[in-house]
Amino acid sequence: MDESAQTVSELGEDGLVRLIAARIGPAPEGEIWTGDDAAVVGSPGPRLLLTTDQMVEGVDFDLAYTSGDDLGWKVVAVNVSDVAAMGGEPHVAVATAALPTSATVAFVDAFVGGLMGAAREWGVNLVGGDLSRAGKIVVSVALVGAVEGEPVRRDGARPGDVLCVTGELGGSAAGLHALRGGDTSSDLAIRHLRPRARLDEARALVPSRPSAMIDVSDGLAVDLGRLTEASGVGCDVDIGVLPIAPGVTAIGELAPEEVAVLGGEDYELLFTIAPERLGTATEAVRSVGTSVTAIGRVTDGPRRIGGRDLEGWRDRGWDHLRGR
Amino acid sequence: MDESAQTVSELGEDGLVRLIAARIGPAPEGEIWTGDDAAVVGSPGPRLLLTTDQMVEGVDFDLAYTSGDDLGWKVVAVNVSDVAAMGGEPHVAVATAALPTSATVAFVDAFVGGLMGAAREWGVNLVGGDLSRAGKIVVSVALVGAVEGEPVRRDGARPGDVLCVTGELGGSAAGLHALRGGDTSSDLAIRHLRPRARLDEARALVPSRPSAMIDVSDGLAVDLGRLTEASGVGCDVDIGVLPIAPGVTAIGELAPEEVAVLGGEDYELLFTIAPERLGTATEAVRSVGTSVTAIGRVTDGPRRIGGRDLEGWRDRGWDHLRGR
Repeated sequence: MDESAQTVSELGEDGLVRLIAARIGPAPEGEIWTGDDAAVVGSPGPRLLLTTDQMVEGVDFDLAYTSGDDLGWKVVAVNVSDVAAMGGEPHVAVATAALPTSATVAFVDAFVGGLMGAAREWGVNLVGGDLSRAGKIVVSVALVGAVEGEPVRRDGARPGDVLCVTGELGGSAAGLHALRGGDTSSDLAIRHLRPRARLDEARALVPSRPSAMIDVSDGLAVDLGRLTEASGVGCDVDIGVLPIAPGVTAIGELAPEEVAVLGGEDYELLFTIAPERLGTATEAVRSVGTSVTAIGRVTDGPRRIGGRDLEGWRDRGWDHLRGR
Repeated sequence: MDESAQTVSELGEDGLVRLIAARIGPAPEGEIWTGDDAAVVGSPGPRLLLTTDQMVEGVDFDLAYTSGDDLGWKVVAVNVSDVAAMGGEPHVAVATAALPTSATVAFVDAFVGGLMGAAREWGVNLVGGDLSRAGKIVVSVALVGAVEGEPVRRDGARPGDVLCVTGELGGSAAGLHALRGGDTSSDLAIRHLRPRARLDEARALVPSRPSAMIDVSDGLAVDLGRLTEASGVGCDVDIGVLPIAPGVTAIGELAPEEVAVLGGEDYELLFTIAPERLGTATEAVRSVGTSVTAIGRVTDGPRRIGGRDLEGWRDRGWDHLRGR
């Protein structure tokens, strides 16, 4: 019979594991991927990067507009983004999925396809995972990477550095707004559903020695707050120069530039760099097809975006536990 | 004010992350644990082990009898058990927690305490994680370990090998039954709530070269099925010699020996070994305080426990997706 129309409950855990293992394929000589208690893989280097991120149905995604394929892609992309923001290379991942027993095998297969697609895109081997059941879908990925030389931390920004961001802001939030309005195919919607980790951009940027870097996952206001607090510095962002994603319009009371400040999940790189290296850094990132915008300065004063205190902005931003 | 009486929603994500980071403590020189995009750690060796396991409220645990501390302990222990069953050493872990916004900070603090307690017990550094919200609690751990020499796989069992198990079976299932009946303090209940990973036992055993090994997480019938299928062998288990945990009585229609065959979550090591090395192996494991029982033989015939086909047993066993 056609397995894909079955529910995961009908196929059962071992059957589903076999299906996923076939998707993942055989391990190279000397490694073990699926099918044993733990995966065995070569170490990617003397210093490992380790990160994990999860996505929860009804909080991080809605099945009304998120396919299994999109979900798998995104939960890998957000982890790769974390490794990129450290100046590292992603290598090996495991995934978990807690699924309703009524989920179809086709959905799970699409999810695994999305995991595999993103893994291939960024050179990651997906080597195993864990399945369970739950009322609502919760998926996670844990990613092992490596860093040569020094990782780019959050806490290295110094007054006088230029504050920069790759690409464009606000697109994912605007895309989410579009999706909720029923538009599932616009460029903005795709930005939200299938974000791109800025791995090529980080590779291009790191030789220019950014002093600090973070990926913009929870919105510029929140992540700039994290970077400047970790570094013990202030900042002054010129809201007029923010690179707003094309097509972003006002959302409710928020003007487009406010969407760019508050919207999460753009996964752009926010970094600080000494002014004399800004030109080289910008050229390097441009060479992989992505713009860099200098959006302000690192200071020893207060933390501000558009003259307004970061705290005021952050109170309006996204917090996974508060649900805003 | 007393933070522990607050809900996670009141404290917020960054506040909770700060509280957890303080619990985890500072990283040693040259490493980064919490507080950046990804953790930076030294590689534990040239060949890594990578595993992940999750626990879902209402499926894998019930808050009526599971404390935050127990939950944290167990989700680490089950991952360490996987690494032990490969003959490896656990080293570094990240955790995820999806929590209702109404969860108290005290519960989360106890959960992190449980994670840290188990991590210390088995020499693991907890270095980071991810928080989100969800209707029901879902937690996971991803664990990186290392293996020197060859890992002990599931697929190496050969006809003529002796089939062995460490410790005792059925205790966790009986403990779960006791917990559901309101008994939260018996030895059996504690076996269920705070399982011990057989890491010392695996270390003692590996020099005697077991041909195959798996941890008994889903019950003897299920995990013996996995081992024998991976190895392409049959087996014959003498149900009369099974090491039944003290205090295990009949549960419903199941006699104590059937509880030992079907009950999950004992996290004992099930292994196969050439008969001439059984004595050394048994002595070695006994030297760390744990018994080894020879429960049967690996054959080239059918797969049987107590003369009954494994398939028949497995249909009554535990499956995370079917919910039995």
